Amino acid sequence: MALTQTQQQLLDHPLMHSHPQAWQSLAASMHVKTYHKDQPIFHHGDPANALWLVLSGWVKLTRQTPNGQETVVGLCTKGELFGKAAMFAHANYPYHGEVIGGDAELAMIPAEVIRHLAQENSPLSASILALFNERIAQAQLKLEHLSTLSASQRLGCFLLRLCHTHPGTKNLQIPVEKNVLAAYLGMKPETLSRSQQQLKPLGIHVAGHTITIDHVEKLREFVCNSCSESGGCDAEDDALGD
Amino acid sequence: MALTQTQQQLLDHPLMHSHPQAWQSLAASMHVKTYHKDQPIFHHGDPANALWLVLSGWVKLTRQTPNGQETVVGLCTKGELFGKAAMFAHANYPYHGEVIGGDAELAMIPAEVIRHLAQENSPLSASILALFNERIAQAQLKLEHLSTLSASQRLGCFLLRLCHTHPGTKNLQIPVEKNVLAAYLGMKPETLSRSQQQLKPLGIHVAGHTITIDHVEKLREFVCNSCSESGGCDAEDDALGD
Repeated sequence: MALTQTQQQLLDHPLMHSHPQAWQSLAASMHVKTYHKDQPIFHHGDPANALWLVLSGWVKLTRQTPNGQETVVGLCTKGELFGKAAMFAHANYPYHGEVIGGDAELAMIPAEVIRHLAQENSPLSASILALFNERIAQAQLKLEHLSTLSASQRLGCFLLRLCHTHPGTKNLQIPVEKNVLAAYLGMKPETLSRSQQQLKPLGIHVAGHTITIDHVEKLREFVCNSCSESGGCDAEDDALGD
Repeated sequence: MALTQTQQQLLDHPLMHSHPQAWQSLAASMHVKTYHKDQPIFHHGDPANALWLVLSGWVKLTRQTPNGQETVVGLCTKGELFGKAAMFAHANYPYHGEVIGGDAELAMIPAEVIRHLAQENSPLSASILALFNERIAQAQLKLEHLSTLSASQRLGCFLLRLCHTHPGTKNLQIPVEKNVLAAYLGMKPETLSRSQQQLKPLGIHVAGHTITIDHVEKLREFVCNSCSESGGCDAEDDALGD
């Protein structure tokens, strides 16, 4: 069977990679759709009727406080899953999902299909649990970073993860507005600008939304020596997600 | 069968509550042990050979950065689970676990027993997944709080959760040193002292490690109006854990 590019991307996801049979039953019931910039995918509190995989583009996940403040809980790009609440019956999405930057191609996996699969397939269920566990570890690490890393180290950590998602690229594109990135990194926009300046001596140059990294190793040393993972987070394939 | 107090506590945990049969097979292989103040339970990187339930006392979970800074990733008390890495074969504990405050009684559930149970019992496996999902939500909420709540609101949130773990108590005991609590809440010890002062007009009085809360509702209003959960986190029975 010749695979479409989309099917191949699904197969490349660690979850599917280790469970090819599960993937085959998913492929038939999965829908792929292109969303445009600023288009909402779902609203906070909507019934979680699907699990989503980003095939291209960027998705921003946000929440709002009763007094009107927006918080960015996730930025997802190629290969990343969001809407994991779909794994649970009667669950709602715990955030608002919206496409940012430009067009985004998303694969929608119906909730009942993935739930049924996980129920029938104990190894798949174990893989999903491991994925959730990794997500807990990532959130805990991000919490740690807010108290142990400086703002410029946190920006550096984000860039290292971006390098990991787009291997072999020296020029990284950040299709996220500066205020969104700042909110995601837990800092003010002016602190983000200052942090970009502070990374210059490490050979990191910012021109608009393009960031050039001369020596990834130097950046890694600057960031990871202050992190309890010590750079051991390389396995986090979807570390920017929800 | 007459239940011991320990067995009753295990049964009271949401996980066991909904799966009494699973609990029965656990009870036989579970060990209960008293640990003393400052006694380590396991070290960061040790093989995760057990899942732990706190029956009484407090446990501090920490990590260290290569340049020697300690970060507090969890504070667990009565009814809370830690060491969830035990759910995965060949996993290591991602933090150091140590008893603080005074004696702590801990139930140790061998990793292979709980893993085997989850494999055989698909509804139990689904409950564990839900528990993990809740943990992700809690970590994300804590991240949100670091950018949307003031220091005194974050302290207030911690107190509300403590009220929830010890219902019906007006005088709460915090058996955690101030510097540990400050680190856990992502603030400096002097900020914690200032935050305590700021909570006084809400009827919250601190004397040593005893905190008296006159009106929980007032505190809830002060904290939860700035939180995207709007106080809907009441279901989080073990919200202080890892």
